[in-house]
Amino acid sequence: MKYLRLFLYTLSILVLTSMQIQKPFKVILFGDSITQAGVRPGGYITLMQESHANYEMIGAGIGGNKVYDLYLRMEEDVLNKKPDVVVIYVGVNDVWHKQTSQTGTDPDKFISFYSAMIRKMQSAGIKVIVCTPAVIGERTDFSNSQDGELNSYSKIIRNLAKQYNCTLVDLRKEFLAYNLANNPENKESGILTTDRVHLNPAGNKLVADLVMKTLKSVEN
Amino acid sequence: MKYLRLFLYTLSILVLTSMQIQKPFKVILFGDSITQAGVRPGGYITLMQESHANYEMIGAGIGGNKVYDLYLRMEEDVLNKKPDVVVIYVGVNDVWHKQTSQTGTDPDKFISFYSAMIRKMQSAGIKVIVCTPAVIGERTDFSNSQDGELNSYSKIIRNLAKQYNCTLVDLRKEFLAYNLANNPENKESGILTTDRVHLNPAGNKLVADLVMKTLKSVEN
Amino acid sequence: MKYLRLFLYTLSILVLTSMQIQKPFKVILFGDSITQAGVRPGGYITLMQESHANYEMIGAGIGGNKVYDLYLRMEEDVLNKKPDVVVIYVGVNDVWHKQTSQTGTDPDKFISFYSAMIRKMQSAGIKVIVCTPAVIGERTDFSNSQDGELNSYSKIIRNLAKQYNCTLVDLRKEFLAYNLANNPENKESGILTTDRVHLNPAGNKLVADLVMKTLKSVEN
Amino acid sequence: MKYLRLFLYTLSILVLTSMQIQKPFKVILFGDSITQAGVRPGGYITLMQESHANYEMIGAGIGGNKVYDLYLRMEEDVLNKKPDVVVIYVGVNDVWHKQTSQTGTDPDKFISFYSAMIRKMQSAGIKVIVCTPAVIGERTDFSNSQDGELNSYSKIIRNLAKQYNCTLVDLRKEFLAYNLANNPENKESGILTTDRVHLNPAGNKLVADLVMKTLKSVEN
Repeated sequence: MKYLRLFLYTLSILVLTSMQIQKPFKVILFGDSITQAGVRPGGYITLMQESHANYEMIGAGIGGNKVYDLYLRMEEDVLNKKPDVVVIYVGVNDVWHKQTSQTGTDPDKFISFYSAMIRKMQSAGIKVIVCTPAVIGERTDFSNSQDGELNSYSKIIRNLAKQYNCTLVDLRKEFLAYNLANNPENKESGILTTDRVHLNPAGNKLVADLVMKTLKSVEN
Repeated sequence: MKYLRLFLYTLSILVLTSMQIQKPFKVILFGDSITQAGVRPGGYITLMQESHANYEMIGAGIGGNKVYDLYLRMEEDVLNKKPDVVVIYVGVNDVWHKQTSQTGTDPDKFISFYSAMIRKMQSAGIKVIVCTPAVIGERTDFSNSQDGELNSYSKIIRNLAKQYNCTLVDLRKEFLAYNLANNPENKESGILTTDRVHLNPAGNKLVADLVMKTLKSVEN
Repeated sequence: MKYLRLFLYTLSILVLTSMQIQKPFKVILFGDSITQAGVRPGGYITLMQESHANYEMIGAGIGGNKVYDLYLRMEEDVLNKKPDVVVIYVGVNDVWHKQTSQTGTDPDKFISFYSAMIRKMQSAGIKVIVCTPAVIGERTDFSNSQDGELNSYSKIIRNLAKQYNCTLVDLRKEFLAYNLANNPENKESGILTTDRVHLNPAGNKLVADLVMKTLKSVEN
Repeated sequence: MKYLRLFLYTLSILVLTSMQIQKPFKVILFGDSITQAGVRPGGYITLMQESHANYEMIGAGIGGNKVYDLYLRMEEDVLNKKPDVVVIYVGVNDVWHKQTSQTGTDPDKFISFYSAMIRKMQSAGIKVIVCTPAVIGERTDFSNSQDGELNSYSKIIRNLAKQYNCTLVDLRKEFLAYNLANNPENKESGILTTDRVHLNPAGNKLVADLVMKTLKSVEN
């Protein structure tokens, strides 16, 4: 009887321990409408979650968000949820809204808010992965009207990644490479996006693959 | 001897109490370049300070700031300094930068950041006074190019004042009234501003008078 | 016999004269999408034509046109058709497109093209009637975002009317007056427009009435 | 005596013929502030004139001009002067003013005015040379904010050149090549421009060389 007890006790310890080991790795995907759509069926977050049960993927995307909108809701949507990793995917609206509503974000302000966000997350012990904004228009001959701006804001993010030692998912670079290989007709959309900005199935697949690969690299 | 002690003790209590009474009323003026210039000789903050020694007037204005920039530095520049009152004077750049650099602030974002700021300050026990953005151009015939926007953002601030029970300094209304009385030639600038936006001596005097009057009303 | 001849001669003179009287007065309505829609059933041009058979009303409106677009097609669409009167109704897109696509028209260029157009038409013996741009948004509290710009461009047109002795249809003034009387809830649209800019039935009726009244005054 | 007459006759024919041969080839340089500055000492037009006395180089550049401004003054500044060749150098402001004053030119309007201009000039027997807009910012990593737009409008001009059989001076391509070779530090300005847009001595030299080479090719 005594041995049975000991055995059961040992067993339960082992089970609890293994449960703790299997406690999922919590990832928050923090971004704009692209990330908001990422939790839909076929979305990039859904794709990652479906193939990786040991991760808890939390979509925290809101349409129209710029870097300062993420900052405003960071405490509630990120810090309070104590994730292991945050993937920040922002910048498209900071550029795009200059053209659509004269309400883009100045580069120096983009840097201030992005830096403040990284610092607060890292202080809370969260690993931060940053993504460059992929595309506004998929033409490969550098004639999408905001290519210059997107390249400039992507450089800012690459520099922030170095400065704060964050892992980078260089979506801008990867999307261009994909389009150079797969968009011989120099189309505006339809290769990785439905509408020059939002992801089609191929786009969701590409982002899921790139983010997932990076998540695995930072986990270890 | 015993009575002398008691007398001295009582006296010192009285002195300390009166000192406490005279501890200055701490006011932070929180805003953009207009407020940054307010601490210069002749500036609106300087004018208020010079005539009211029982107040401690702290200028916290930074050129180019919009509502979200104030939010970003609120903790350091306001909350940590534990003022009795904060006067928020922001909105000009939120409108103006739409035209100058396509980086203005959308109305819904303006409301979100402004509200968040008021709530955090009020939670910290600080009285909040809000100002409407005065002018971008002083013409009185409603032909300044951003009059419509300024009127719209001023309405937002008036509504926030009601919603959060903040005292309002309606600079936009007062500047228009002053110009209707003093700008018969419908000039763009030179009446209350040097350059359509920043205050000249008459402008600094008007703002100082209006803010001071409001400060006295909230103090009691 | 002699009397019969005289009678027939007199009769034919009368007939010829009356024919000349009935040669329709040719009017070209020259403008943007508002005028393009004016020739539809219920449109302002259709309304005028239906009630005035002695006028030949020709709609020459093209969507998205600004003052320089009118200038480009003036020879083909106006001068070559030898109208008695041209009603120029332009300016909304010159202002609006600043916000929607950063492709508005600078005030000095607006004046250059408008003046050149008036001069060429008047040199061709055409009477020119000019209209101020009515509204972009119908709110009556001066908070439509481009009210300042519309007021400014309307002033330009009023000045051009004086300078070149053109008759003015001050739609901007009349629309505001109508809205002050009929828009107590300060709505953005639905009073004279369907969408802040394009005319609903009441708007078409108002423009038809105002333009028709002016046409009658210049005809004599 | 008879021989003297014949001799004098022959001589005068020769003189007249040679005069005719030496009648300068008339070139109008038609553009914006870059061309306006081209007639100053060291400017690209001055450089071409100084080294080629057999050409009459006429600068017709006005600061701030866009394609429609050229169209407005084409009759007076070009057609009436009956040049042999016109070099059109426009497009920078059509793009740039989108950012600086929300008054750029839509691509479809750019095409309409440019085509109309080419057609009228060619109908008047004038040879038309067209230039792509060189740069707004000299960075070579495609991060100048309006690179996308400039590339897009340059494509439009290349297509118009083909369509109307005009000779092309592809300044955009040549400036990029020069910067790739001479701007290793990825500077914004100072290589071919003083201020991201207007030509410094090296820029004037490069434009003079490229335009001159093209002029020689069309002359024959």
